[in-house]
Amino acid sequence: MLIKALTFDVFGTLVDWRGGVAREAEALLAPKGFAKDWGAFADAWRSRYQPAMRKVRRGERPFTTLDVLHRENLVELLAQEGVEGLTEAEVDHLNRAWHRLDPWPDVVPGLHRLKARYIVASLSNGNVALAVNLAKHAGLPWDVILGGDVAGAYKPSAEAYLGAVRRLALEPEECMMVAAHPTDLEAAASRGFRTAYVHRPLEDGPGRESVRPQPGTFDLSADDLPSLAALLGC
Amino acid sequence: MLIKALTFDVFGTLVDWRGGVAREAEALLAPKGFAKDWGAFADAWRSRYQPAMRKVRRGERPFTTLDVLHRENLVELLAQEGVEGLTEAEVDHLNRAWHRLDPWPDVVPGLHRLKARYIVASLSNGNVALAVNLAKHAGLPWDVILGGDVAGAYKPSAEAYLGAVRRLALEPEECMMVAAHPTDLEAAASRGFRTAYVHRPLEDGPGRESVRPQPGTFDLSADDLPSLAALLGC
Repeated sequence: MLIKALTFDVFGTLVDWRGGVAREAEALLAPKGFAKDWGAFADAWRSRYQPAMRKVRRGERPFTTLDVLHRENLVELLAQEGVEGLTEAEVDHLNRAWHRLDPWPDVVPGLHRLKARYIVASLSNGNVALAVNLAKHAGLPWDVILGGDVAGAYKPSAEAYLGAVRRLALEPEECMMVAAHPTDLEAAASRGFRTAYVHRPLEDGPGRESVRPQPGTFDLSADDLPSLAALLGC
Repeated sequence: MLIKALTFDVFGTLVDWRGGVAREAEALLAPKGFAKDWGAFADAWRSRYQPAMRKVRRGERPFTTLDVLHRENLVELLAQEGVEGLTEAEVDHLNRAWHRLDPWPDVVPGLHRLKARYIVASLSNGNVALAVNLAKHAGLPWDVILGGDVAGAYKPSAEAYLGAVRRLALEPEECMMVAAHPTDLEAAASRGFRTAYVHRPLEDGPGRESVRPQPGTFDLSADDLPSLAALLGC
């Protein structure tokens, strides 16, 4: 069956969350006299991401947008790191660092090539407001934003993928999930999606290169979006 | 408060549903020997639109996508018009005429101008699949698709507007509804939206020009999207 839509993971796959969050944290907090390893600060914030979503996935709390989870996690992190005295507006601003992340250099030209032939859809755990603002900032030319509060479910829950398929009125095998994270691709594949792995060795920062999956693990494997476009004949 | 998002009605405001549906109906049915006034055929199909949505708005049936309502209405219309012998695939194809409508000539350049400064959002009663396919066909450069099955409510129900505001994490007064239909704009205004009327005198076909609202009825009034862009300083 022909692929009609490419559904993309965003954080790490398309945008450099670690570099962007570190830069924004430093820009706000360094002038206030806080000295940190800002990459480690970004890592610590990100490490609270999966546990927060897990409560939603397990039904221990109702669906709550990622902007809200990020902010709760940030407030905890700031307390743990001994950062005090921020205004609510400053915390909000720092929380929206996730709305202002930069794309990897290949992403915008690659997405435009892919968009000429396929529906290109954001299928992130980010909520719509986050995804729209991030797309405006980074120049991501989405045809449609799915996932997050549109699905009311967090990847890798089945409903995150099946909700996207239902919105698009496609069959799962007409959709290809594109991600740098094997867990995301495996969950999509288990729901019938085709899969494309994109290698992003720098996602977790220098000296922590991600391991490339064995050949044949996913339908396609590429080093960047133009390479993926070439594999798809775009 | 500054406007951050422009939310657009689509059928009639941006695309010529009557001309497109008439063209597609003729292309399918005339070669089969059916002779009709195809504009009137489009009108008859469209006339079943509000009654079908009304059942959803009143809670007489659960939320059902516009593609499904359109198809139910089409099947009834074909029977009424004495059109028999179509395959299910042909009925599906004709039903998707609503996915292949052409924009008014000013729309694509106008939307690009507006998009440079504002979030541009589809806020139609069309479901996501319809809206995505229509945007691909017509070149509508949406930042985000709202309304329809994203809101789970049909305009002019309050939830259709408030659901959009909630997804965007904006205040209603940061959103401007853009439409050729006073009822849509009045409902949006009653929920706190700013409003822009766009005059589309040809929506209902020749000799049936819509009446322009009195000056001051809405926040802005324009003859096309470039004029609206100029009023908004884009």
